[in-house]
Amino acid sequence: MLEPFDDAYYMKRALQEANMAYEKNEVPVGAVIVVGDRIIARAHNLTELLNDVTAHAEMQAITAASNFLGGKYLNECTMYVTLEPCQMCAGALYWSQIKRVVFGAIDEQRGCGIMGTKLHPKTEIIGGILKEECSELIKRFFIEKRNLN
Amino acid sequence: MLEPFDDAYYMKRALQEANMAYEKNEVPVGAVIVVGDRIIARAHNLTELLNDVTAHAEMQAITAASNFLGGKYLNECTMYVTLEPCQMCAGALYWSQIKRVVFGAIDEQRGCGIMGTKLHPKTEIIGGILKEECSELIKRFFIEKRNLN
Repeated sequence: MLEPFDDAYYMKRALQEANMAYEKNEVPVGAVIVVGDRIIARAHNLTELLNDVTAHAEMQAITAASNFLGGKYLNECTMYVTLEPCQMCAGALYWSQIKRVVFGAIDEQRGCGIMGTKLHPKTEIIGGILKEECSELIKRFFIEKRNLN
Repeated sequence: MLEPFDDAYYMKRALQEANMAYEKNEVPVGAVIVVGDRIIARAHNLTELLNDVTAHAEMQAITAASNFLGGKYLNECTMYVTLEPCQMCAGALYWSQIKRVVFGAIDEQRGCGIMGTKLHPKTEIIGGILKEECSELIKRFFIEKRNLN
């Protein structure tokens, strides 16, 4: 059973966003940003629809959260994202000074871990929350893509 | 004398953008993106005005160039930027598969070189074009900031 307001609870919300990306034929990654018990931003990958490599879920969520808060620092916030952030998104999270980053599936090829991207010293990062569900959705997307081509 | 259409020519255009940031009390960094002999995107840092850490000159220029081209890959393009890109911007340039990145001043603390951020294998990067002018503007900005506080 899911406890409200634990990491799995918010990762489920990020997974809902990832599913919205999936339905739009986008690489299915979703993110939410939480402060206290409240979700203040939600976004999913839109790189194809917007023709824009910068339109990752995390980037849009950071912009939306900053808009909501009226300030560019997210040092009281936690981001939940279904896939480990890439260099670009980890670099943006560095600037945001976010308090916590919680990701689902590990990206062994382009994740910030393997790439050595630095987060802010104040940022805590943990991975693997609902990792099977997060990675299963991405795998399904790429298998279907391959079968269509 | 400036030859039209050499690297210094386009860096001067990026410096014009940096000056626009300076006038808005933003860290003065500017960028243009060129394809063939044509500037297809120009942008300057707007992180303060937009309250958004993702609003670096390079990020906005990538989005604008993709809009102009109607596609997300910039593999025929060169970016001119007055300061060495950070992790976030280099990460975005990685995804864009841009052909060339030409920067002015070196960022010895947070530049992609010292941070070890990876660009796409097809991307050529060179630095130091008009570096004195590019770094002088940034230094002036921070000295004035310090004197005001």
